[in-house]
Amino acid sequence: MTDSSTNMRLKLPITCFILQIILIILFGVLVQYDEDTDAKKHHHGNHSKTKPDIENDFYYRYPSFQDVHVMIFVGFGFLMTFLQRYGFSSVGFNFLIAAFSLQWATLMQGFFHGLHEGKIHIGVESMINADFCTGSVLISFGAVLGKTSPVQLLFMAVFEVTLFAVNEYILLTHLGTRDAGGSMTIHTFGAYFGLMVTRILYRPNLDKSKHKNCSVYHSDLFAMIGTLYLWMFWPSFNSAITEHGDPQHRTAMNTYYSLAACTLSTYAMSSLTAHDGKLDMVHIQNAALAGGVAAGTAGEMMLTPFGSMIVGFLAGIISVLGYKYLTPILENKLKIQDTCGIHNLHGMPGVLGAIVGAVTASLASKEVYGEGLEKVFPEVAGGHRTASYQGGVQAISLAVTLGMALFGGLIVGFILKLPIFGAPRDTTCFEDSLYWEVRKPQSHFSYAEKKIGASSPSKIRRNPD
Amino acid sequence: MTDSSTNMRLKLPITCFILQIILIILFGVLVQYDEDTDAKKHHHGNHSKTKPDIENDFYYRYPSFQDVHVMIFVGFGFLMTFLQRYGFSSVGFNFLIAAFSLQWATLMQGFFHGLHEGKIHIGVESMINADFCTGSVLISFGAVLGKTSPVQLLFMAVFEVTLFAVNEYILLTHLGTRDAGGSMTIHTFGAYFGLMVTRILYRPNLDKSKHKNCSVYHSDLFAMIGTLYLWMFWPSFNSAITEHGDPQHRTAMNTYYSLAACTLSTYAMSSLTAHDGKLDMVHIQNAALAGGVAAGTAGEMMLTPFGSMIVGFLAGIISVLGYKYLTPILENKLKIQDTCGIHNLHGMPGVLGAIVGAVTASLASKEVYGEGLEKVFPEVAGGHRTASYQGGVQAISLAVTLGMALFGGLIVGFILKLPIFGAPRDTTCFEDSLYWEVRKPQSHFSYAEKKIGASSPSKIRRNPD
Amino acid sequence: MTDSSTNMRLKLPITCFILQIILIILFGVLVQYDEDTDAKKHHHGNHSKTKPDIENDFYYRYPSFQDVHVMIFVGFGFLMTFLQRYGFSSVGFNFLIAAFSLQWATLMQGFFHGLHEGKIHIGVESMINADFCTGSVLISFGAVLGKTSPVQLLFMAVFEVTLFAVNEYILLTHLGTRDAGGSMTIHTFGAYFGLMVTRILYRPNLDKSKHKNCSVYHSDLFAMIGTLYLWMFWPSFNSAITEHGDPQHRTAMNTYYSLAACTLSTYAMSSLTAHDGKLDMVHIQNAALAGGVAAGTAGEMMLTPFGSMIVGFLAGIISVLGYKYLTPILENKLKIQDTCGIHNLHGMPGVLGAIVGAVTASLASKEVYGEGLEKVFPEVAGGHRTASYQGGVQAISLAVTLGMALFGGLIVGFILKLPIFGAPRDTTCFEDSLYWEVRKPQSHFSYAEKKIGASSPSKIRRNPD
Repeated sequence: MTDSSTNMRLKLPITCFILQIILIILFGVLVQYDEDTDAKKHHHGNHSKTKPDIENDFYYRYPSFQDVHVMIFVGFGFLMTFLQRYGFSSVGFNFLIAAFSLQWATLMQGFFHGLHEGKIHIGVESMINADFCTGSVLISFGAVLGKTSPVQLLFMAVFEVTLFAVNEYILLTHLGTRDAGGSMTIHTFGAYFGLMVTRILYRPNLDKSKHKNCSVYHSDLFAMIGTLYLWMFWPSFNSAITEHGDPQHRTAMNTYYSLAACTLSTYAMSSLTAHDGKLDMVHIQNAALAGGVAAGTAGEMMLTPFGSMIVGFLAGIISVLGYKYLTPILENKLKIQDTCGIHNLHGMPGVLGAIVGAVTASLASKEVYGEGLEKVFPEVAGGHRTASYQGGVQAISLAVTLGMALFGGLIVGFILKLPIFGAPRDTTCFEDSLYWEVRKPQSHFSYAEKKIGASSPSKIRRNPD
Repeated sequence: MTDSSTNMRLKLPITCFILQIILIILFGVLVQYDEDTDAKKHHHGNHSKTKPDIENDFYYRYPSFQDVHVMIFVGFGFLMTFLQRYGFSSVGFNFLIAAFSLQWATLMQGFFHGLHEGKIHIGVESMINADFCTGSVLISFGAVLGKTSPVQLLFMAVFEVTLFAVNEYILLTHLGTRDAGGSMTIHTFGAYFGLMVTRILYRPNLDKSKHKNCSVYHSDLFAMIGTLYLWMFWPSFNSAITEHGDPQHRTAMNTYYSLAACTLSTYAMSSLTAHDGKLDMVHIQNAALAGGVAAGTAGEMMLTPFGSMIVGFLAGIISVLGYKYLTPILENKLKIQDTCGIHNLHGMPGVLGAIVGAVTASLASKEVYGEGLEKVFPEVAGGHRTASYQGGVQAISLAVTLGMALFGGLIVGFILKLPIFGAPRDTTCFEDSLYWEVRKPQSHFSYAEKKIGASSPSKIRRNPD
Repeated sequence: MTDSSTNMRLKLPITCFILQIILIILFGVLVQYDEDTDAKKHHHGNHSKTKPDIENDFYYRYPSFQDVHVMIFVGFGFLMTFLQRYGFSSVGFNFLIAAFSLQWATLMQGFFHGLHEGKIHIGVESMINADFCTGSVLISFGAVLGKTSPVQLLFMAVFEVTLFAVNEYILLTHLGTRDAGGSMTIHTFGAYFGLMVTRILYRPNLDKSKHKNCSVYHSDLFAMIGTLYLWMFWPSFNSAITEHGDPQHRTAMNTYYSLAACTLSTYAMSSLTAHDGKLDMVHIQNAALAGGVAAGTAGEMMLTPFGSMIVGFLAGIISVLGYKYLTPILENKLKIQDTCGIHNLHGMPGVLGAIVGAVTASLASKEVYGEGLEKVFPEVAGGHRTASYQGGVQAISLAVTLGMALFGGLIVGFILKLPIFGAPRDTTCFEDSLYWEVRKPQSHFSYAEKKIGASSPSKIRRNPD
């Protein structure tokens, strides 16, 4: 099941090697330890002045970092294993493009977030930010899942990470937007970028591999591993880079309640919209997470658990309705083939989160936040802007993000159309055996109905003769 | 495989929506951020007086909270996926009732633990407590697994959370009982409540679906994911809400050694009690965890690693013997159909843990605990009671818990018998397709023996036509 | 599928019980809480002198400990589930020998690391060290996977833990070697010990069970769970017991970049060395981790992200080449049957890591490390040795480790050959049903091709008649 155009023998190794060597060179030239990571900087001056080791930011960010890391590699990776014959690619390409993106994001974000005498300083916070940017790429991956080669994905990551960093720079640095959990910068950007890419890569004959674009019983259980890790650690995601103290604490808690409420509305809507009242694993796996997306901007604000629950409740409803009614329309009318339904999980809930953030920001006041206003809205606390102006900035940021994502996706989509990248044919989409050694794919359970020869191991291990 | 009585089309959405809307309203009226979570309270008074951000309780509890969270959603959820055709329901209903219970528990526990000017104050500690209460509900879920509709489960959670909070209030607040890891409040309560519920819901003709009440090869591997996460994070569970410093450190370590010893005795007993010496996955998945349950009360005390190992060693032996010899007796003589064997994992080890706690408490002394006595036994350290009195209180608390659980389970069992809740028939127990979209369940591996048509995807994704 | 020699009915229970009882007795005699865990020691002297509860080492090490714990039980356990009929044994024996080894390692390491008035003092740091030692045993387990009984494995653990502690003592205490992440003490030692054991246990007729020594589609997905957890948490592993502050922060970050670079070179090499350019799950599951192994010694040094990436890049290349070309040679020429290819994942990358560590140490200087030199190279900072002398010590340590591992493995291999341990026959290797209740193994998916009777649950649960 390989033809010359999709054969990765040279394309993939060359791409990986060149990208990695470029990364190594750029790291050698540009990157340095920050003051919490460097042996010398950490101990400069006299000892009494330096902060004690136990105040190293490692201890206040690293547990959150690891939770985010699990979301990126296990969460996104396994969430996409629902496809019956595409598990290796889902978790394996997720692994590859994430490992690339986090390195590239370190450089791009470091470049835009400000150089220190020409150098990028890195530590646990840059590691979290790199994982965030990677998350955005993985969201876009969800839209094109099953229809793209690993080389296409790597090039998509190259461009998307760059654009992500530009958009993030415009929002956070220039506009002073607040978006700790990335409703806009991560979810809205990743979703609409990916949707535009998949629109450009539209395949009119995709129904030739439609029978593979579905789950089997156990692939849905694997996908639930991804869902649950995303759900559980979303509070860590949204709070990972907020200010220390009450904002971090509050963000985690708001997200937790938003997700809980979202779960109940997802189950309700999934059952309600099915003619026989049966729950749909697609909804449970995806829509139950929309509450985390929708709390990404306002999570650090004084949204209150009450407000968080309303947001999550609405996000679950919107998301299930999207899967049920909007996705078929997008596919049939707008020619947007969105494999994982990222529009329902990241797109609409991301926009909802941005709007909630704008409204909540415009209501901020010294009465509610007290001295804590400085941590969440430094510009407002400093008297440089009013709360309603901040709300307006938040709304403009959503528009900027949508524009960047759609325009970027348009350009990148056309680049990825170049035949050199070895996209699979319409008949071989959603199929691991195109890229992976799966000696006798017929032997695994989803093919169990075919009666085949008695000894059919899919692969003899460690004896490649 | 749906008939009108078990059709969830209206029952489930209405139940979820009403419960969630009630929760949102009550949160709006009653719940506020605590002082570590609120922007204003955290910064009241002059700055020099407030505690620094890095002393926010978030940094001392949140990693433990996330470990507990993983136990609740992945641990309990996947532990129950051992059933061959009930994986969606195991992990999916676990998800649903946990997401509901943690919200409801926040209210119930907040109400009983003390209002602040009519308001419930919440933060990371209340989040852990809510997960604890949820754990108790999930234990009971294990007893009725496969035999109850999601609506029954949600109503069970409504009542059980309430009773849990009452029992916890009596023990911790009124009696001054020590039970950091919940041998009594969580495990004993959840187990005997669930056993009574399943007794009342006794199905004389359950053997009609007996062929589905078993595992297949890969469902046992999925279940091991649950087992291992429960096993690894149990030290975090037992230590999550102890006092800071040495008690938290000690509790985690005691639990770790109890579990390790329990694992060896579980393997020994599993092999010893099988006529051909073969290990039974049921024992490994469950009994190896009994050491964590049994260290739930005494874990924070000066039990010593030596004592912890003895406790764990005994817990493993008791638990395997329970699975082997007691469960059939309970089922045949007492009509208690305990799907997951919670009596062996949570019931008996919970009682053992309570007894160990009572004995250890009665031996507490200033000689052993030094100044640390105040953190573990404030009443004894303050001279208000003697150590042996404390031990007596611990023993009485076990009796109270058993009484509350059995009486509560009795009442709730009869409520759940009402036909309106849509319980499955005897022939459709342990069957996902009653509640979930599983288009052609025959195609997954546990049905591989049936030769069926060539293209049988269980579900076409994102194209619900 | 049981004969008298491999029947574990008496051997396994007796072994487990005797070992566990010995452990309990020795813990009773020798082990005490350390000052961060003990109620009294933690509060001795007047209150103002004792360190505050929030500086308890628990808060600075426990999150790392839990990450390491997940690697040991889920990481190693699931990584080995790739075998189609050996999943229960992979994850189950991993669980058993890890639970034993961590207890035994506490004693052995405590004994060599220094007694306090005849007692071993334990806390979170000893828990991490015990898990590290356990990791070494699990590496060796990978070499003999599928070919050894659980009793053999337990005895292997008894001896290997002891030798590990001796080797670690020689290196860390006597030679003053730096090896925070254990490139030498854990990986090199575990790998060459295991390789020598499997050499001695050479089975000329192992091809009789060759058809079982391979993966199926879903066993490879289970194995990816193990891979990803190892990959994600390796930064925590390497940094778990470094000094607080910048060394811990730096080690985690160096490891993170080493792993990321390693992943790209692994994908490149896997595709390049396949004649059709297809990726091999064996490489992705294993070689992508080599970057963590290779950063085990130099990770805490000022290796820089640039240096870390080069190391990881090389480790990935070496590891894939090993799987592709060296493993068949080892098997056919040197009679080393290495089931999991530990030579490629732990052996060669471990040696690489040791060499990188020696070179990096020999380049250490006050200019680069500043005051931080004391934390990483106390002997050099104190003027007791030069940096190049330290580099020489590191190199010698590698030689000592290799010698200890090979000699130890030789002796232990011959001990394990004794027929009393009940090794499986050549025809029953890689087969769960020898040790586990798997009533009808034909019913699970890897046997789907055989048409069998309609109702064939692998096991009726809780009704052992």
